[in-house]
Amino acid sequence: MITETRREVCRLHAELVRYDLVAWTAGNVSGRVPGEDLFVIKPSGVSYDELTPESMVVCDLDGKLVEGDHAPSSDTEAHAYVYRHMPEVGGVVHTHSTYATAWAARGEPIPCVLTAMADEFGGPIPVGPFALIGGDDIGRGIVKTLAGHRSRAVLMQNHGVFTIGESPKAAVKAAVMCEDVARTVHISRQLGRPVPIEPHHIDSLFDRYQNVYGQRSAK
Amino acid sequence: MITETRREVCRLHAELVRYDLVAWTAGNVSGRVPGEDLFVIKPSGVSYDELTPESMVVCDLDGKLVEGDHAPSSDTEAHAYVYRHMPEVGGVVHTHSTYATAWAARGEPIPCVLTAMADEFGGPIPVGPFALIGGDDIGRGIVKTLAGHRSRAVLMQNHGVFTIGESPKAAVKAAVMCEDVARTVHISRQLGRPVPIEPHHIDSLFDRYQNVYGQRSAK
Amino acid sequence: MITETRREVCRLHAELVRYDLVAWTAGNVSGRVPGEDLFVIKPSGVSYDELTPESMVVCDLDGKLVEGDHAPSSDTEAHAYVYRHMPEVGGVVHTHSTYATAWAARGEPIPCVLTAMADEFGGPIPVGPFALIGGDDIGRGIVKTLAGHRSRAVLMQNHGVFTIGESPKAAVKAAVMCEDVARTVHISRQLGRPVPIEPHHIDSLFDRYQNVYGQRSAK
Amino acid sequence: MITETRREVCRLHAELVRYDLVAWTAGNVSGRVPGEDLFVIKPSGVSYDELTPESMVVCDLDGKLVEGDHAPSSDTEAHAYVYRHMPEVGGVVHTHSTYATAWAARGEPIPCVLTAMADEFGGPIPVGPFALIGGDDIGRGIVKTLAGHRSRAVLMQNHGVFTIGESPKAAVKAAVMCEDVARTVHISRQLGRPVPIEPHHIDSLFDRYQNVYGQRSAK
Repeated sequence: MITETRREVCRLHAELVRYDLVAWTAGNVSGRVPGEDLFVIKPSGVSYDELTPESMVVCDLDGKLVEGDHAPSSDTEAHAYVYRHMPEVGGVVHTHSTYATAWAARGEPIPCVLTAMADEFGGPIPVGPFALIGGDDIGRGIVKTLAGHRSRAVLMQNHGVFTIGESPKAAVKAAVMCEDVARTVHISRQLGRPVPIEPHHIDSLFDRYQNVYGQRSAK
Repeated sequence: MITETRREVCRLHAELVRYDLVAWTAGNVSGRVPGEDLFVIKPSGVSYDELTPESMVVCDLDGKLVEGDHAPSSDTEAHAYVYRHMPEVGGVVHTHSTYATAWAARGEPIPCVLTAMADEFGGPIPVGPFALIGGDDIGRGIVKTLAGHRSRAVLMQNHGVFTIGESPKAAVKAAVMCEDVARTVHISRQLGRPVPIEPHHIDSLFDRYQNVYGQRSAK
Repeated sequence: MITETRREVCRLHAELVRYDLVAWTAGNVSGRVPGEDLFVIKPSGVSYDELTPESMVVCDLDGKLVEGDHAPSSDTEAHAYVYRHMPEVGGVVHTHSTYATAWAARGEPIPCVLTAMADEFGGPIPVGPFALIGGDDIGRGIVKTLAGHRSRAVLMQNHGVFTIGESPKAAVKAAVMCEDVARTVHISRQLGRPVPIEPHHIDSLFDRYQNVYGQRSAK
Repeated sequence: MITETRREVCRLHAELVRYDLVAWTAGNVSGRVPGEDLFVIKPSGVSYDELTPESMVVCDLDGKLVEGDHAPSSDTEAHAYVYRHMPEVGGVVHTHSTYATAWAARGEPIPCVLTAMADEFGGPIPVGPFALIGGDDIGRGIVKTLAGHRSRAVLMQNHGVFTIGESPKAAVKAAVMCEDVARTVHISRQLGRPVPIEPHHIDSLFDRYQNVYGQRSAK
């Protein structure tokens, strides 16, 4: 199971590169090992080209290294906090993707003006607090903002994006879609005011997408 | 004939990726099967990398699955409505391409200020109504907006773009050109007012391009 | 010599794609055949992937097809006009590259606020007149604007860019650099006013670059 | 040692291309040869595709050619000045990357409103003077601006970016991160005012990143 999670988490980093969500080594994916109090995460400061399943790092839910030859990502404490406090979460992604981080730097939530955003996030994408790295502040900010919220993405002020999902792949999808809607809404706003979508339309889009979209088993 | 349409529709999805018109699985191409009341469309929620001619789905003109192992795209009803009401249409494309969708979010047509836009679209690219997915609302909005209009692209409000063509390839070309002009006109407008093109010049550019451009047989 | 020019002109189209200067089939390179009253140009409406040296078209300086199985680019008359009236020109490039065309749509020259722009263009990049395709209007607009001007690029109003060079490669370089400076100056202007460069500094940068830069034989 | 530096400096040019920091031949990396008063730099006007370890040029600290078949980069004097006056520097990079150069064209420092910017640059990225190429003016401007400054990047007015590092790779990383933060802060500013980060938070982020991040030996 650990071997499979190492492989999947490693492979998903290539999606961050492909969708241009990361520069140099500044972004990471983690995945909970099914049935264990463990998660797999990127090693710190290693370039995406050099990642292999073997170089991935296994940590316990306090973020302590359990298995691996490298130091874990410097964001490990934030990932660990999320896994400890949100048992339904199977994957966490962190990026500094450009447009989402631009909203985060202004501390401004992304308004829900696209049907794709209603589908995926069920409303605006919220902003979490400014928090320093090291310790539980970032993790606490993520969990506090996302608990009870439909959005699976949070813009951490002046910092970047964290997304969660039932699996690492779902969290990566949320990271890709978050940047996509952050960009489109930004560009729309540059030349005027996007038309709001009525709340009951957002509700029905979100409901449909969560329950109907995709191949039933492949979601 | 179905085999050939499966192959062509599958292949054209790679153009959506190449021209950066789609993120994750959010865009689709369909093609009418020549001489049949059928069309081929992308399966729902399957990533572009994994598409094969065999995984494409065949539907009748009511959007019901006729052949294929996967559920058809969640946009199938909109495609089907277009094929039922516009017999001259051989291909339909749907994307959330960034700049076109940014205009759509404001509900603002793209003004015709580029000769390439006059060539391809013969005037502004119009906006269709806000419509929820599921049922005929989106399809009806597309057909109502494009019927009798020169433009082969419509910006569906808060949603994205639908394009039509005599073939799937022509519809993909319209999707590529729609995003290209949406981007260029957006950027031009950011620093001032683009110079309008006089209507009779638009007419003569459109007329020439539709009748003279390209290799006669390859259009 | 024709064979060599076919190969070079074909190869250079890949640079237009690599630098993202073209969408679908909307851009072309041509090259004068050394020592002949002929030039080689892209066939009309053929995609960049499918271009081969053999599919390139040879025209005389009136733009009439001399050799080739395809119709020449619909911009052939403009290229031919340039070769007839500017004997020092060995290559011509036409694109609708995004940022340059955005300036062209406003009919606004690009001010010289970058040292790289002083190097390559020796001052602002000028705007040519609105002109319809078909006949000599576009070619005349290019020549009238560039004759006696340092810039090897002209923004044709509402249309796109034409660049010239002593060779096809030099014209492609001018097209790449034109889009690069169009983009950088646009972005700089979005948040304020770029600092002007004093005219005598522009002169000395231009002079140095034209005479000192690069490997002596490889320019 | 020279062979190893040639290989590394050659290889790092591909990162400039990969991160889209350069157009045509307009950017260069150099690296000090460990233990020698020499550095390796890109040949002038050669395209990135054609670079090989053998085509790289070796210069002394006055910027004079010591070994190599090509003329050294036209920016060699600036690199040499930095190596002469900053003995701790092992690598220098110069680019005209789009967003950083847009700030440089306005002569405006990039404010520190991102935690990643506090990490990497420890504060705002400063602007250096307008300086003509040829002679020591550019080198002097770089050294004067960066001496005693935390930032390893300087925006040379109307020109572009120079970055320094303890190794060529560290200087390339600084160039990549400089463009990344220049872009994100630009985009954030387009729609309002980014939230400032308090100076003592910047200090603690910078301190932590310089001392804790990455695999200890791989920094």
